Amino acid sequence: MEAEQKGERRWQRRLHEIIYEVDTVEGRAFDISLIWAILLSILVVVIDSVESIAQHYGDWLYRAEWFFTILFTIEYVLRLISIRKPLRYMFSFMGLVDLMAILPTYFSLFLTGASYLLVVRALRLLRIFRILKMWHFIAEGRIIAQALYRSYIKISVFLLFILIMVTIMGSIMYLIEGGENGFDNIPTSIYWSIVTLTTVGYGDISPVTPLGRFFAAFIMLCGYGIIAVPTGIVTTEFMSAVQKGNSSQSCPNCGREGHDADAAYCKYCGSHL
Amino acid sequence: MEAEQKGERRWQRRLHEIIYEVDTVEGRAFDISLIWAILLSILVVVIDSVESIAQHYGDWLYRAEWFFTILFTIEYVLRLISIRKPLRYMFSFMGLVDLMAILPTYFSLFLTGASYLLVVRALRLLRIFRILKMWHFIAEGRIIAQALYRSYIKISVFLLFILIMVTIMGSIMYLIEGGENGFDNIPTSIYWSIVTLTTVGYGDISPVTPLGRFFAAFIMLCGYGIIAVPTGIVTTEFMSAVQKGNSSQSCPNCGREGHDADAAYCKYCGSHL
Amino acid sequence: MEAEQKGERRWQRRLHEIIYEVDTVEGRAFDISLIWAILLSILVVVIDSVESIAQHYGDWLYRAEWFFTILFTIEYVLRLISIRKPLRYMFSFMGLVDLMAILPTYFSLFLTGASYLLVVRALRLLRIFRILKMWHFIAEGRIIAQALYRSYIKISVFLLFILIMVTIMGSIMYLIEGGENGFDNIPTSIYWSIVTLTTVGYGDISPVTPLGRFFAAFIMLCGYGIIAVPTGIVTTEFMSAVQKGNSSQSCPNCGREGHDADAAYCKYCGSHL
Amino acid sequence: MEAEQKGERRWQRRLHEIIYEVDTVEGRAFDISLIWAILLSILVVVIDSVESIAQHYGDWLYRAEWFFTILFTIEYVLRLISIRKPLRYMFSFMGLVDLMAILPTYFSLFLTGASYLLVVRALRLLRIFRILKMWHFIAEGRIIAQALYRSYIKISVFLLFILIMVTIMGSIMYLIEGGENGFDNIPTSIYWSIVTLTTVGYGDISPVTPLGRFFAAFIMLCGYGIIAVPTGIVTTEFMSAVQKGNSSQSCPNCGREGHDADAAYCKYCGSHL
Repeated sequence: MEAEQKGERRWQRRLHEIIYEVDTVEGRAFDISLIWAILLSILVVVIDSVESIAQHYGDWLYRAEWFFTILFTIEYVLRLISIRKPLRYMFSFMGLVDLMAILPTYFSLFLTGASYLLVVRALRLLRIFRILKMWHFIAEGRIIAQALYRSYIKISVFLLFILIMVTIMGSIMYLIEGGENGFDNIPTSIYWSIVTLTTVGYGDISPVTPLGRFFAAFIMLCGYGIIAVPTGIVTTEFMSAVQKGNSSQSCPNCGREGHDADAAYCKYCGSHL
Repeated sequence: MEAEQKGERRWQRRLHEIIYEVDTVEGRAFDISLIWAILLSILVVVIDSVESIAQHYGDWLYRAEWFFTILFTIEYVLRLISIRKPLRYMFSFMGLVDLMAILPTYFSLFLTGASYLLVVRALRLLRIFRILKMWHFIAEGRIIAQALYRSYIKISVFLLFILIMVTIMGSIMYLIEGGENGFDNIPTSIYWSIVTLTTVGYGDISPVTPLGRFFAAFIMLCGYGIIAVPTGIVTTEFMSAVQKGNSSQSCPNCGREGHDADAAYCKYCGSHL
Repeated sequence: MEAEQKGERRWQRRLHEIIYEVDTVEGRAFDISLIWAILLSILVVVIDSVESIAQHYGDWLYRAEWFFTILFTIEYVLRLISIRKPLRYMFSFMGLVDLMAILPTYFSLFLTGASYLLVVRALRLLRIFRILKMWHFIAEGRIIAQALYRSYIKISVFLLFILIMVTIMGSIMYLIEGGENGFDNIPTSIYWSIVTLTTVGYGDISPVTPLGRFFAAFIMLCGYGIIAVPTGIVTTEFMSAVQKGNSSQSCPNCGREGHDADAAYCKYCGSHL
Repeated sequence: MEAEQKGERRWQRRLHEIIYEVDTVEGRAFDISLIWAILLSILVVVIDSVESIAQHYGDWLYRAEWFFTILFTIEYVLRLISIRKPLRYMFSFMGLVDLMAILPTYFSLFLTGASYLLVVRALRLLRIFRILKMWHFIAEGRIIAQALYRSYIKISVFLLFILIMVTIMGSIMYLIEGGENGFDNIPTSIYWSIVTLTTVGYGDISPVTPLGRFFAAFIMLCGYGIIAVPTGIVTTEFMSAVQKGNSSQSCPNCGREGHDADAAYCKYCGSHL
């Protein structure tokens, strides 16, 4: 009995190693296959939305979709049986994403009609979040994420300030253009302000009156100065992250810090680090 | 008599504490309620400008507008009677903003007609400035404001330089396109230059002649280099703010701050830190 | 004879002080008046190009133009007679700019016709360069100019690299869209590449074929990374300019550098700087 | 026999010096002539694609094209006979580029028809890569290239992150606008997301529904914060490149470089600098 349990545990542990970890050759191969499967399944959904392709290769795409759905279903079941606490996994963020990756296709059997199809297709694309699981492959991603996270509050405050500004600017513009020339109402004018301040500039709405153009030019020059702020924030965080990274070591002899990451000897006193 | 005056002072002081300060629980609650009231009242004005919504929910929006106006009127009166120098408050920037937040709705009783309505609506949106009162909630905002303030002169000089450049570029473009293809006059051409140099690029006016396109490409590549300048200015200010901020120690002798992180002696009076 | 010459010299020197220098009250007043005259004369030229204004206020603008032309002529003559080497001034850059500021209006007496008018108007705008004379008012301008000047070579090399890239990108796009959809020839396609890479994006020409859009998206993402380069160059120059500015002083006691601009005592050893 | 071989070697070595090296006056003159020839030949191809020019000066452009092709053919042959290992050169990147610079024109003798002409013309433009050979003229280019190369991995990770984001954003937008208003399918919506996030903003596709505009504004404000990331990465690399560059000293013991400006001991081997 105990031996059987142990045996069960052994293949479970083996499966767990392959599916959840990247230390073994098989685990690494599993992860890489999974990334390809995710990317290909996303490609299927994306090109399925192109009418001309869907008309010609609809059958193949339908089969490919079911192939990936069954593959991800098998993976989901294997994940459930190889983990010690299946419920905790099921209700974790990644567990829910994994479930969302397979449910829509099964739903599509019951829900028919073009409008439902659109939603189902979009839901399938949530699979893309599964790529985030592979993030641990990439060390560089952590540095960027940290720098962004640390500048998170400053950028939020900045965005709040931008929101106040675009509300005021949009309202003034609504007043100047007199509710015409595309500036039909204040929300639309605010939308235009954001399009202008972020230098996107679609041109679907653009000022026509001389005063409107003058004020628009003013907004653009403001945006010129303002676009510098988030850049300044993030750059500062990056640089202090790099400087912090350099000085994590202190010399055992003279105790001074600030050594490069590849330093083997203290640059101040010459003793081995 | 004196006791009564003291009693009066007590509720006045209590009211002052709630309205003007954030130290007490009630004061904090008051501030947060106020922010919500301001945001909701702005939302009412903004969506009231959308015709389709105004037609259906016009009555409700009208009532909501009056609700907020009366609320802000009560707040304004309370502010007046709870402060020691009401006149100074009335003519302060924030006092005028507070007054502007309630006046337009009362004006709308006397002024009728679509064109007046537009102005009244825009004036109501000045309430958004009242959110600036809440700025003290946000410590991060101060750092951004300081960095922008310190780079204020440099950015102004830079904008002056940009203004000279766009005048010249606009005039050349007016000459090249020969007053046609949307480049009808020099102000319009200057407007186009600003749209191009700031990389907004609406496309409402765009060069058509080969020479015009060549010159436009030249302007864009200039803008590429020039857009770097405000970013460079602001980033530099941010970084020196952070480096200064690292050494928040103040001198034990003269009490001044702003020493570098590696400073051992006060740079102002020379005493040991 | 000598006394007379001396007397002549005295009023000449006095005039020279007023016109060329800013140390005296009169010199400063002269400079400020001149800036206003230049700005107003530019304004006259700019608004004269707007047809609707020219039709109504044409006479006034014509008189204003002649007023400023005569004013600048007097100034030019005064500059000539108050300087010791008039010829050197005449053929200096500023002397030529000053001459260009008055000549076009006199030319307009002989040259008639709409096309000449356009050129004359544009030439008049060269007056704007005279504002550069006032640059010495602004200390901050020098820092920006220096940072830009020092990054001049790097940005030139970068622009050369961009020019090679846009030629290749434009040619590929010309090939993909098959000389249609606005991509009529290679120069136009290169123009489109520049519009896209600099994130201006007019939309007068935009890809229509799927492959064209795919490649355009690729160019945009490249531009995303590439726009960072001039910013990085200029920011680095700004920061080293600031750091240089800080460390211009070395301590007379310990000889170490890196003191702030406002430091009175060495931050390392505490001795007076 | 041996003398003859030596003589052959002598003119070969001389030719090698001129063609492959820049130490001699002739070598430098050869390189500069070559740059001009490349630039002019590119100009010929570029303006040949403009129909109005091709109609008038077609003959001259045809002759110029053959002149440059024969010139580059001679250069290619000289390169082959003056180098010791001709095969290695032939199959090197630069050798293949050199071959690509002459082949298309010869191909054009056999391939006729407008569609082939387009391809041949584009292939001829590959000559532009030959300018990269001249890169050694420019020292500044190396610094930029190094900074870009070092931030290569970080920017790649960042672009991967952007690709995931635009896929999600494009899909949501496709869902919101319901496959209409230009958002016909998911690839097109992803294209629109990239156009928006990179702040290019053609305006060929732009949201029309209120919810679509709201979400588009959200994407733009995200892009505002996100555009800061590559700038932050590159600027940080530039600055550490400059700081490293300041201390260009190499260790007298192990000869390695890259020490900080304040280093007194080699960080690799610990010997005194």
